Amino acid sequence: MPDEKMVSPAVIRRLPRYYRYLGELMAEGITRISSKELSERMKVTASQIRQDLNCFGGFGQQGFGYSVENLYNEIAKIMGIDGGRTIVIVGVGNLGRALAGYDKFEKRGFALMALFDNNPKVIGTKVNGFLVQDAAMLEDYVKEHKIDVCAVTIPKLQAQGVADRLVAAGIKGIWNFSHCELSIPDSVALENVHMSDSLMTLSCKISRIEK
Amino acid sequence: MPDEKMVSPAVIRRLPRYYRYLGELMAEGITRISSKELSERMKVTASQIRQDLNCFGGFGQQGFGYSVENLYNEIAKIMGIDGGRTIVIVGVGNLGRALAGYDKFEKRGFALMALFDNNPKVIGTKVNGFLVQDAAMLEDYVKEHKIDVCAVTIPKLQAQGVADRLVAAGIKGIWNFSHCELSIPDSVALENVHMSDSLMTLSCKISRIEK
Repeated sequence: MPDEKMVSPAVIRRLPRYYRYLGELMAEGITRISSKELSERMKVTASQIRQDLNCFGGFGQQGFGYSVENLYNEIAKIMGIDGGRTIVIVGVGNLGRALAGYDKFEKRGFALMALFDNNPKVIGTKVNGFLVQDAAMLEDYVKEHKIDVCAVTIPKLQAQGVADRLVAAGIKGIWNFSHCELSIPDSVALENVHMSDSLMTLSCKISRIEK
Repeated sequence: MPDEKMVSPAVIRRLPRYYRYLGELMAEGITRISSKELSERMKVTASQIRQDLNCFGGFGQQGFGYSVENLYNEIAKIMGIDGGRTIVIVGVGNLGRALAGYDKFEKRGFALMALFDNNPKVIGTKVNGFLVQDAAMLEDYVKEHKIDVCAVTIPKLQAQGVADRLVAAGIKGIWNFSHCELSIPDSVALENVHMSDSLMTLSCKISRIEK
């Protein structure tokens, strides 16, 4: 297998989608698939699929196609979701609640461990079976339980401060929903979900269709 | 200006980020910026910036840099957020509520018009000043008010049905938060927010840092 470090960010960004489609194929009882069939389902070209999957060592066989389960498991390994990771959420507003009720965490290899908020009215309440804890306890909890990831769904102005505390506590990744760019060291992974970027992209797509 | 239809999807995906940064520069009172300075802020290479902005006709001047406001306005035009679009939300669960409370809509050129749900307990309640309407009225509303975009935050199994109804009612774009791939005609724009893809991407980034 080639050095996975060489896989381009664009390919990495496509892996989750491959993973989802392969999961659906497995659920349908399909065990093998050709790049052509997969391309029709996923609406990308077969050559794109072959190129992408070649990036991390292929797994396909000429005239046989891909073993769905094998490819699914290999992609899970590459994405590091096969080993089990832990996640906590800081910020139990509507978005935090939506995430807390998100039933896909486990399926994606993440165990939700705890919820935190700094609002006295929210601390001590139960959300989806979790007692909301005081955000002041966040670092201790992350350290003690060696938490991998924190979803940050708090107002923009507080986000950098909380991110700094998470980094100091040894977090491995931050899933940032706050409307700001966080400054964190390269040793910590960062994934932003910028809702407004997505909305502007949609607007852009509409403009291009209208032309 | 070159044919904007030729601008690659990758560049389009970066436009919102340029737009956000330029907005911040304007808020700071900065009127001109070189590609080098912009690249330091955005943590992308200056050549990437020049290449991206050249794609839709430049606007930069040698030795002068870019006029922040001009570039901001031009990008807004390209993204079609300068003209004002209308948006409704179907599905007033936690995620729908989070979106309804999202204060960036207006800033991004979108006017939130109405909320819909099919839960009798939710219909008729007020969320962020909006009376939640019966989802059965969705098509009529979209047709009557010529709504541009619908945010779909409903369970996976209902999403395709609602999407079909929206398309029939003349919607221009669907902002899909449901955990499924929607099948819609090419004449309607689709932007998916797959939370679980984002989480898997984060996991993948952690794995690569750990190596």
